Amino acid sequence: MKAGYLQFKPVFGDPEANIKKIIKLTGRKKFDLLVLPELANSGYLFSDKKELTELSEEIPDGKFCSALKSLSRNKNANIVSGICERSGNKFFNSSVLVCPDGKIFTYRKIHLFNTEKKWFTPGDLPLKTYEITVRGSGKIKIGMMICFDWIFPETARTLALKGAQIICHPSNLVMQYCQRAMFTRALENHVFTITANRTGKDIKKDGGISFTGMSVILSPKGEYLHTGSKNRDECVIIEIDPSVSTDKKINPKNDLYKDRRKMFYRIH
Amino acid sequence: MKAGYLQFKPVFGDPEANIKKIIKLTGRKKFDLLVLPELANSGYLFSDKKELTELSEEIPDGKFCSALKSLSRNKNANIVSGICERSGNKFFNSSVLVCPDGKIFTYRKIHLFNTEKKWFTPGDLPLKTYEITVRGSGKIKIGMMICFDWIFPETARTLALKGAQIICHPSNLVMQYCQRAMFTRALENHVFTITANRTGKDIKKDGGISFTGMSVILSPKGEYLHTGSKNRDECVIIEIDPSVSTDKKINPKNDLYKDRRKMFYRIH
Repeated sequence: MKAGYLQFKPVFGDPEANIKKIIKLTGRKKFDLLVLPELANSGYLFSDKKELTELSEEIPDGKFCSALKSLSRNKNANIVSGICERSGNKFFNSSVLVCPDGKIFTYRKIHLFNTEKKWFTPGDLPLKTYEITVRGSGKIKIGMMICFDWIFPETARTLALKGAQIICHPSNLVMQYCQRAMFTRALENHVFTITANRTGKDIKKDGGISFTGMSVILSPKGEYLHTGSKNRDECVIIEIDPSVSTDKKINPKNDLYKDRRKMFYRIH
Repeated sequence: MKAGYLQFKPVFGDPEANIKKIIKLTGRKKFDLLVLPELANSGYLFSDKKELTELSEEIPDGKFCSALKSLSRNKNANIVSGICERSGNKFFNSSVLVCPDGKIFTYRKIHLFNTEKKWFTPGDLPLKTYEITVRGSGKIKIGMMICFDWIFPETARTLALKGAQIICHPSNLVMQYCQRAMFTRALENHVFTITANRTGKDIKKDGGISFTGMSVILSPKGEYLHTGSKNRDECVIIEIDPSVSTDKKINPKNDLYKDRRKMFYRIH
């Protein structure tokens, strides 16, 4: 199947400009699954609640979701994107999975990073996997996690144990720790991972924040199938065989899932 | 405190030669905590049960343990070592923590790698932490895991959640995945890790197996404080401040332990 990421610098506060950028960058590319960065509609660095209110939208009927739906339908492709979500009087740092048949699924970031805690409510939905239909590959299970969720091993682990073959990972990474650590996440769970990071800087009068680009796609063996550029906008699609991730054997005697000694694990 | 590893090529089938090597390599070095490789008494590549029986020993009264006890007393230091353990008619791929006051604690590898399954019984003891006394640093909590245990994120996680400040990791690594992944293990748990790997090759008539050296010591920030050589026997001691690992804050708003969203984690 054809899977990849779209890396770009969202224009802060201009969802329509971001939609245009996304459509332009996908161009004539063909893909079955595309992952976009965290908060791809709004940008990252909020100054006040008013800004947050204006830049967020309800799922599934907001402008950004509608644009993703139309892109998904036109491309006959599944799209995962970070989105600044408003739900009643709450705000979530969310991601949506938009399918070509018009279905939309939402995940809300459960581990908020730093000042995100000021703006967003922590995710209140379970980590789940979703079955997508892919031409030639049949039904594929994917999971979603967002940016800082990566540092908690239980996030990817939970998705993998629930059957995710590909972990879709919209991100706004300020350091490069994650890109290095995704080696471990892919390998320990024997899954594909697609980390779609953003580039550029959000600047406000009291400071700014830079993002590290270098989106990464990893194989279940921990191979870096692709590492993106630091600064460029790009849409990268590669060919992967998602069926590889269902076999958890790493040699004739070791199966990474069956060998787990659950009775000895404590996570609470 | 002074902590480190001893990396060497055990002579297969000659526990006494290995004891001599260990004593020679520690020489006049001073340390509070030293980690030795997996199966440091016996070597790795067994041919039959007879060999295994001859090369294993009961804890705490076998020759190898007695030598470690005397080294620990002489150095006034804590030593963690891999050991081929016999207990009744069972064999375990174990590690011992030997303290200068004569106490010995045992951990038995819970995740056996490849052909180890032919020789050893899977570990039947819980993952635990142990309080050691260190001059100038007071009481320090350490945990033990062995080699392939690293690939299961729950192993280090369990030790860390039980309070381990330093994870001692005797290893016989044939690939270099682990040395790369310890970056993630140290960082995600915010603990020090000491992976003591062996070097050289075990050769048998029907083949051989090579080990990758490059023992690694990491800080709670995922820094490689030391990476060992590929081939050389060496005893490397560095100065670390174990108290750093008790604070799990990575910025003023994020604490890697308090931020965990346990209700969403599934590991079973």
